[in-house]
Order: sequence, then structure tokens, then C-alpha cells
Amino acid sequence: MTRILYGLCGSDIERHFSPHVWKSIMSLKHKGLEFELKPVPFTAVPGIEGGCSKTVPVLKDGDKIISDSFAIALYLDEAYPDRPSLFGGEGGKAMARFVEGYSQNVIHTAITKAILLDIYNMLAPKDQEHFRRTREARFGMTLEEVAAEHQAAVAAFPQTLVPIRHTLSYQPWIGGQHPLFCDYILFGALQWARICSPAKLLPEGDPATDWFERCLDLYEGTGRSVAAAA
Amino acid sequence: MTRILYGLCGSDIERHFSPHVWKSIMSLKHKGLEFELKPVPFTAVPGIEGGCSKTVPVLKDGDKIISDSFAIALYLDEAYPDRPSLFGGEGGKAMARFVEGYSQNVIHTAITKAILLDIYNMLAPKDQEHFRRTREARFGMTLEEVAAEHQAAVAAFPQTLVPIRHTLSYQPWIGGQHPLFCDYILFGALQWARICSPAKLLPEGDPATDWFERCLDLYEGTGRSVAAAA
Repeated sequence: MTRILYGLCGSDIERHFSPHVWKSIMSLKHKGLEFELKPVPFTAVPGIEGGCSKTVPVLKDGDKIISDSFAIALYLDEAYPDRPSLFGGEGGKAMARFVEGYSQNVIHTAITKAILLDIYNMLAPKDQEHFRRTREARFGMTLEEVAAEHQAAVAAFPQTLVPIRHTLSYQPWIGGQHPLFCDYILFGALQWARICSPAKLLPEGDPATDWFERCLDLYEGTGRSVAAAA
Repeated sequence: MTRILYGLCGSDIERHFSPHVWKSIMSLKHKGLEFELKPVPFTAVPGIEGGCSKTVPVLKDGDKIISDSFAIALYLDEAYPDRPSLFGGEGGKAMARFVEGYSQNVIHTAITKAILLDIYNMLAPKDQEHFRRTREARFGMTLEEVAAEHQAAVAAFPQTLVPIRHTLSYQPWIGGQHPLFCDYILFGALQWARICSPAKLLPEGDPATDWFERCLDLYEGTGRSVAAAA
């Protein structure tokens, strides 16, 4: 097979947890394209395919190499136009950036506050050192200080689901009648939390929780193939 | 002319300020359709066209009557398919709901906290009574208690611009290379603040501020035709 998706792993190389890699896993499944998923630990990312990217995912498709989950989705729609679109037109392509902006700046921030120490605990020792240094610099406090606010962060989390709930009050998916890349953007964030932490971020009976469960079922349960953290 | 858009006014009937009506004004301009804008005070809304809606905007287009800004945009795209689309495809139609969810639940809430007493002061006495009763019930405090937090609300506001800024780092409009209904959704919220209050919610030099100014320029400065509050 010539199609390889490089994704992030911790000490257990089977537990892919990167939200951005999950976006690309779901994008490839959406297009019905086969691929091999290659686990890479944090500190080995700069060596992928001769150092083409500082971050994952990286997709190698024949002789094409593309990094960044949004760029990969755009590439897939352009390279495989006969398969189901990931954006549903030019407007959807544009507005998926808004969903990305919300997901990365609001949802990711809220998740990070709630599960930072859980992510740390998943990593191999060498990666833990890198993770602690970079994240403590970003937060301006120790991992343990961030973790002390865990309960408050979990309690505050459902508030970030409001635009998702609003959208689902009109349609079954964020992308409308069928899931699109915008669904995978938000799914990636919540899947990351599900795999890294036993924290209950999604309230039972919430429409967003129901939607997330349906995302986990897509493509023969691809999302469920990695068990939730216990 | 048989096309009428009913919009909200305060004691000065020329100063249309409803965010939802602004979405429809811009939608009609986007489609290049002529219309008459009819001002209606809060307490007269239930009487529009024989009581068809509890809220504005209401569009009367020939013998069709449509209320709700999103429904009006959908109607316009369906009724006038040869004119520029407001959504840019099915994906855009779906994701505009996410932008709406963010605008109405995050941006509107933040604006309301910052300018509630300014809106009250724009209204005619009869409407002020209605506004005070309904808004104090919604906030669980008096208008004056909400207004006491004015400075903090203004200072906190720019944080709500983050997904807009993210989107604009990739493209000139939320809708991509051209404005779409999603731009008007967010514009409506900020135009409402601009017309009702002298509070400086948009930071100078911010990409979101630049985008808002470009929105004000659209369609021969339709947005600027109502002066900012001083």
C-alpha cells in the first residue's frame, strides 16, 4: 500500500490520541480510501519522511506528502473528486475554518485544562519530558497546578457544546444530513479527550453526546476501535 | 413595491438596530433585491401582517410571508436561484447553523452584558417597560445590576472574536473569497452593538475589526447608513 497516515502515539503505540490525526483518519474513511496508520511518538515527529513537518498528521499518498489535517482534507477532495465531498461546496470549505477556529481555540483549551495530566501519563518518559517543558511554558504554570483545577474544568466543559447543540437542533450532523469534515473536526477533539482521560466531559442525554456516539459508530466503528480511557 | 421587510425600531424609527433584521437587510442586498424597510417598535411586532410572528424580521415578498432571518435567507436562495447564493452549497447551509449557534449564544450574550442599558435607553417608554420586564426575568437581575458589570463585559468581549480571527487568517470573509450569509450573521450582532452603544467592543487593528469595517462598506455602505451611537 502506498498510502500512509502518520499519527501520534504514547507509550502504547496502538492508542492513537491526537485530535488532528483523528480528523484525517475519519477523512480517509469518509472518502473510502485505504491507508496504513503509522504510530509516531512526539519526539520522533520531526523525523517523519525526512523532516517534512513539525506536527502530525502527515499523509503520504503515492509521491505526495501533505501535513496538517485541514490541508489533507482539501487535498483529498481535490485528488478524489468522485468520492463523497468532505466540505459540501465552497461555502462549506470556508465555514469549516470557523468550526476549526472554535474547536481549536475554545474546545481544545477547555479539554486541555480538564485532562492535561492524563495526557502526560500516557506518554513514554522521553516524550513526557518534552510535553512537560512545552505545556508548562504555554500555561505559565506546572502540569500539577493546571491539574488542581480539574474538577472546575470538567464542570465548565459542557458550556462549550452550546454551538454544537444549536446546530443539532436543526439537523442530525454538523455538516447537515450527512457528516462532513466539520463533524470530524469536532469529533477529533472529543475523541482525544475520550482516549486520554476517564473524565466525564459529555453529559448524558445531551444531543452533543448522542451525536458523538453516532460519530464513534461511523465506518464500522472506527472511532470505537480505540477503547475509552478507564 | 411588493417586497417589505419589517424591522425593529426604538424611539427614533430610522435607527433599525435588531441584529436579526440586519442579517435580512444584508441578505436582500446580497441578492440584489429591492425592498421597503418598515420600522416596527417592540410592542407592535405581534401585530405585523395580521400577527404572523412574535419576532422580526418578517419578509413579505408578493404573497409569501416569511419570518426568522435564517428562514428568510433559505427562502431567498430558493426563490432566486439565479442570483448569488447566500450559502455556497449544502455544506455551507449546514455550517451556517454552527456560526448562528456561536453568534446567538456566545457573541449576543457577551454584547447584551456590555450594552443592555444602552438598548433600553433607545426605546420608547412603552417598549422600555416590556424590555425591562422580559430582560430582567432572563438575567435574574435588574438592568442596573447588569449594567454595573459594563466595564468587565467590554474588556472580556474581544475573546469572543477568536473563531472569527482564526477564519480570517485564511480568507478575507467568513464565507471565503466573498461574503455569505455567515458573514451577515456575525455582522448583525456587531452592527447591533454599534448602533445601540458607544462602547468600544472591537479592538483597533484587530482583523475582526477590519472585516467588520469591510462589512459596513458592502452594498454602497448599507451598514453605515445608520450612524454609530455616540
